[in-house]
Amino acid sequence: MKLISGGVCAAKGFKANGVHCGIRKNHTKKDLALIVSDVPAAAAAVYTTNLVKGAPLLVTKENIANGTAQAVICNSGNANTCNWNGIQIAQDMCGLVEKATGIAASDVVVASTGVIGQVLDITPIAEHMAELTEGLSYEGSLNAAQAIMTTDTISKEIAVEFTVGGKTCRMGGIAKGSGMIHPNMATMLVFITTDCAISPAMLQKALSHDITNTFNMLSIDGDTSTNDMVTVLANGMAGNAEITCEGDDFAVFMKALNTLTISLCRTIAGDGEGATKLLECTVTGADTLEAAKTAAKSVICSSLLKAAMFGADANWGRVLCAIGYSGADVDVSKVDVSFRSAKGEIAVCKDGAGIPFSEEIAKEILLEKEIDILISVGNGPYSASAWGCDLTYDYVKINGDYRT
Amino acid sequence: MKLISGGVCAAKGFKANGVHCGIRKNHTKKDLALIVSDVPAAAAAVYTTNLVKGAPLLVTKENIANGTAQAVICNSGNANTCNWNGIQIAQDMCGLVEKATGIAASDVVVASTGVIGQVLDITPIAEHMAELTEGLSYEGSLNAAQAIMTTDTISKEIAVEFTVGGKTCRMGGIAKGSGMIHPNMATMLVFITTDCAISPAMLQKALSHDITNTFNMLSIDGDTSTNDMVTVLANGMAGNAEITCEGDDFAVFMKALNTLTISLCRTIAGDGEGATKLLECTVTGADTLEAAKTAAKSVICSSLLKAAMFGADANWGRVLCAIGYSGADVDVSKVDVSFRSAKGEIAVCKDGAGIPFSEEIAKEILLEKEIDILISVGNGPYSASAWGCDLTYDYVKINGDYRT
Repeated sequence: MKLISGGVCAAKGFKANGVHCGIRKNHTKKDLALIVSDVPAAAAAVYTTNLVKGAPLLVTKENIANGTAQAVICNSGNANTCNWNGIQIAQDMCGLVEKATGIAASDVVVASTGVIGQVLDITPIAEHMAELTEGLSYEGSLNAAQAIMTTDTISKEIAVEFTVGGKTCRMGGIAKGSGMIHPNMATMLVFITTDCAISPAMLQKALSHDITNTFNMLSIDGDTSTNDMVTVLANGMAGNAEITCEGDDFAVFMKALNTLTISLCRTIAGDGEGATKLLECTVTGADTLEAAKTAAKSVICSSLLKAAMFGADANWGRVLCAIGYSGADVDVSKVDVSFRSAKGEIAVCKDGAGIPFSEEIAKEILLEKEIDILISVGNGPYSASAWGCDLTYDYVKINGDYRT
Repeated sequence: MKLISGGVCAAKGFKANGVHCGIRKNHTKKDLALIVSDVPAAAAAVYTTNLVKGAPLLVTKENIANGTAQAVICNSGNANTCNWNGIQIAQDMCGLVEKATGIAASDVVVASTGVIGQVLDITPIAEHMAELTEGLSYEGSLNAAQAIMTTDTISKEIAVEFTVGGKTCRMGGIAKGSGMIHPNMATMLVFITTDCAISPAMLQKALSHDITNTFNMLSIDGDTSTNDMVTVLANGMAGNAEITCEGDDFAVFMKALNTLTISLCRTIAGDGEGATKLLECTVTGADTLEAAKTAAKSVICSSLLKAAMFGADANWGRVLCAIGYSGADVDVSKVDVSFRSAKGEIAVCKDGAGIPFSEEIAKEILLEKEIDILISVGNGPYSASAWGCDLTYDYVKINGDYRT
């Protein structure tokens, strides 16, 4: 398994592009992305658990119900959610892809991110489909990655190479993280492509399992968006024997997917709205996986802990507090806590009570950009990690103050 | 039912005082409070659900297990939590009350708020018990209210007068809200006194029911403290026939308690850390009480909504989003939302979709200090309210930046 470049175009047979079509007012910001596979691909997706679901999600769900897709279209600047005509517009976007590429509308994954509650005008999309498809390229991943950004400060791409049945396979992805355009909410979108041959059922199984330990363990601000979606297209062009059951090949595929998704989680967390730090909380020694996950996620979601990390304050009381109210079945009198970064590691709490430590060294460790919060809750066999970011003035500014 | 002055000393036979004993470094800040009833009182309490519980809570729980108490001692500046000797110190505090007042240590409610994980030195408390008890007064509520403050910006007192069985009864309370002293977490303490005669069992029943609609519907930042506690002492000195069962008298008592607790909830929410606005979210038309409460609390807890309110931004998408991920069983296509303040009311969402509204008028409404978020989710019979505050730069400053 090695990291390679190329993002969503790293896998054989995937082209991508991104253009500015005019949904966003800023002419320097791309707002329309297209990813196309040379051949039909197995498709899998997971969606937000929010009861309010964006119209594009509903259309995508229907389109990939048969386990195949060949293209992804995504706009930023408007989430096409909570509108009377959302479904129609999302279907029309798929229709535009069919018209421009010949790929059936029912084989298109459609996504939108941005303002909710404002009708999405399809005209600028229609007018730029020619430009979008003519510019499709096997090196177009960055364009697509840029076109799905909202308040993300960096574009997010990653790709890996791995071997299945003697064949070299590639898998790549692009993502957008927490973004906000009035009046909207954080929205995470991830599009993954691979040339590995895998059946739709096994692809969905891999994705559904993977996200329980990756994207579902990620929190920027505790708000679950209406438009969150992760999709994978697998076009089989690597030439390996199709993965149709569990076994070594599936394990390698899962490993590749997990490498990709953890990397994207970390990138999204570190680029959370207003964030200055990436936080990774790892809980070990739990008696159940559920307890480890619940405790880790509770710590990463605590506003008090997040604010303390912004201030590089070794406030372990907030870690204990967040474990205590998490609902996780742990013995709080056995909890150890330490903080770690590139500058070193410092233990701050042992058996649920404070221990003497150097505030100066703790400060130095916590001033770094990536902080690990390490928690041992006993001698059990389970562990889990969760990812998040600090709570900063800029988070408040982006989400409260940006119109004044 | 009418509002009266006197706080925790409004009820007959309750004295209080607060002094600076030296747990807090700032000499102008009181840090030790005492409330004493002239006669033994029925006692009830509710405690944090955090698995990490402050030592004083455990001692209080034991002391009032028999349903009676006669005094409350509370210090600020140190939470006496996560320390090896916490229980002993809390018991010693009760012992000091016995020595100074003659009230049995086992009849004392003990509470602490402030830093956690640092051993509480009992010496300054012991040295100031004489001053504390000598200063006890039937007009001493404000002193006590001030002594339990941490980062609260205002002291919190309220009292009401009501009639039970022809006798005039009084009930009063003091509270402290979200406060932070390194390294600590938000802590809410509420002490209520009444001269109404009521059995311990009915007192506990009243309190346990009341908090499900009041303090349990309050959120400053989503973090549940280790030291939260609400206690009521009822000394019977109003001379009414003791309330020992449900009925009209109990209903009047519940009403008085509810008036008091809702007022304290609103005061605590409005004085949340860094808050500039009090938010009250009311959900009506739900099919179950649970759905109404879950939806209201989810909205009040949303960081995105809280930041939007700080910016006076009529961002109804965040309201819908928070309802959608709350887990409440509601039909999101039937949700109406409006915002209301002293400046008027404006509808912003109807049947789950945006409606045209004047951004200018919305802004004017949302620039007020008290905002009602009104949500109708259908035609069901249940409603619920929750209280919170906006998310501001100062919240981040208080909790992240205050040591740098």
